[in-house]
Amino acid sequence: MGLFTKDIKTMDDLFLHVMQDVYYAENQIVKNLPSMIEKSTSPQLAEGLKSHLAETKTHVKRLEQAFQLYGKKAEGVDCPAIDGIIDEADDVGGEIADKKVLDAAIVASAQAVEHYEITRYGTLIAWAQQLGRNDMATLFKQTLAEEKAADQKLTTLAEGAINLRAAS
Amino acid sequence: MGLFTKDIKTMDDLFLHVMQDVYYAENQIVKNLPSMIEKSTSPQLAEGLKSHLAETKTHVKRLEQAFQLYGKKAEGVDCPAIDGIIDEADDVGGEIADKKVLDAAIVASAQAVEHYEITRYGTLIAWAQQLGRNDMATLFKQTLAEEKAADQKLTTLAEGAINLRAAS
Repeated sequence: MGLFTKDIKTMDDLFLHVMQDVYYAENQIVKNLPSMIEKSTSPQLAEGLKSHLAETKTHVKRLEQAFQLYGKKAEGVDCPAIDGIIDEADDVGGEIADKKVLDAAIVASAQAVEHYEITRYGTLIAWAQQLGRNDMATLFKQTLAEEKAADQKLTTLAEGAINLRAAS
Repeated sequence: MGLFTKDIKTMDDLFLHVMQDVYYAENQIVKNLPSMIEKSTSPQLAEGLKSHLAETKTHVKRLEQAFQLYGKKAEGVDCPAIDGIIDEADDVGGEIADKKVLDAAIVASAQAVEHYEITRYGTLIAWAQQLGRNDMATLFKQTLAEEKAADQKLTTLAEGAINLRAAS
């Protein structure tokens, strides 16, 4: 959330700003997930990330619906937080020769991305409700549920086969 | 997690690298929480962040214990993810004139920081267990429980007085 702008005066401005932040983040994730999928050697991990890529495209569409409900143009704002998280996720690989260790690192990076989204959608839901925008909160809740499920699937992978292989 | 180094070959290397990443993150949080506390106008928010600052100092000490158990020097590595998150959190304010809106923004920033820590400690616990380091996992679990409780307290603040004031 790049809060360096003087345009944020009201709660509505702040709400819109975080929507723009998350819109930018989701689009960056769509752009960067394919390279993580390509680097994954575990078929379950690659499959899980692929299905999350499809979900993420739905999240972008849902945000566009939310912008429309709010009467605003769907647009992103630069956000150093997600850029930092994605840079790390994207740079994983190349440097780690052992593919099993690399898989474990990819899971950890993907979970950091998920948690950023979980916190932002949680914020958007709380603010939408308080601004009387339950219609928008409903959209955000659908996405939040999917982000949490994706994180849970990654935890299962992390606790299961991938890490056991990497430590062996 | 700045995974740009060629030193990561094994799961042990990756585990140590993430410990260094989190050590850096916790120290940055200790450095940056005071300015967030100063900007807070809600007494409950300021109080909550103050008590989390004290907890964060304990988390640094616990990590130092974990490094010691692992036979390694406690040191940090640069991490663009937490830097981005903290830059945003730190830059909140100044630009938002309405103090109530500012409080809501501070809560959101603090939750983004919490979620980064939650995901990293979750990863460290999974890896510690798989590397047979239950002694270290126990330390990380204590911190994770406190991070989750801090996030929950912030959610209560966000859903309660602060956002209601800001939207009114």
